[in-house]
Amino acid sequence: MYVIDQKAPLDMPIPGLQHATWAGSDDGLEQMSVWRQTIAPGGATPPHRHDCEEIVLCSSGTGELHIDGQVHPFCAGQTVAVPRNVLHQIFAVGAQPMNLVAVLAATPVDVYLPDGQKLDLPWRS
Amino acid sequence: MYVIDQKAPLDMPIPGLQHATWAGSDDGLEQMSVWRQTIAPGGATPPHRHDCEEIVLCSSGTGELHIDGQVHPFCAGQTVAVPRNVLHQIFAVGAQPMNLVAVLAATPVDVYLPDGQKLDLPWRS
Repeated sequence: MYVIDQKAPLDMPIPGLQHATWAGSDDGLEQMSVWRQTIAPGGATPPHRHDCEEIVLCSSGTGELHIDGQVHPFCAGQTVAVPRNVLHQIFAVGAQPMNLVAVLAATPVDVYLPDGQKLDLPWRS
Repeated sequence: MYVIDQKAPLDMPIPGLQHATWAGSDDGLEQMSVWRQTIAPGGATPPHRHDCEEIVLCSSGTGELHIDGQVHPFCAGQTVAVPRNVLHQIFAVGAQPMNLVAVLAATPVDVYLPDGQKLDLPWRS
């Protein structure tokens, strides 16, 4: 399957986060997953890490990347690069939802919480 | 460097192709490169392959992915997934330029022409 329709992100059990998997292992990919997400104002990902790099392309809104107690602000027109195995959390700040595409260098993606527990993702990855 | 400004694609020695590297080894990445490209109507990439998957997010325009003599049309709102080491070529068709973001599961990316020669990319990857 070479050409895949891009689906709109849908509500997920994680509050304030909408998600659609645009490409991943279910599409025959072996090296990358593509996630399209919308984070509502005030919403955030859980703090987490994964054993692969993540690239976030922010297409609208304003966000913060939190790593090791440091806050890295970003907005539409910027790219966020998260190194592998670095604990991080992404917040949507400001009045508008934040829209992003995240590409992860693994598929499926194993995601871990700060206590080392594996996060049971509510979507295919 | 976690947050990187997205640059506008610029003319390159490959006719009809504008390019900007949005993220890659120069930014400290180890697993992925992100390329922002605009292909003019009638323009195309060279036929090529690389030892990593490529994901193309088409944001405007209409294109064709050519693989093994087969034509796979795509347009804005679709994602193209190219398996590793598969010879392919991307054409912009229609009247408008095609805008895309390509994510490759390597950095830097070694690109090879059909005869096996390494393509000397005119951009950092």
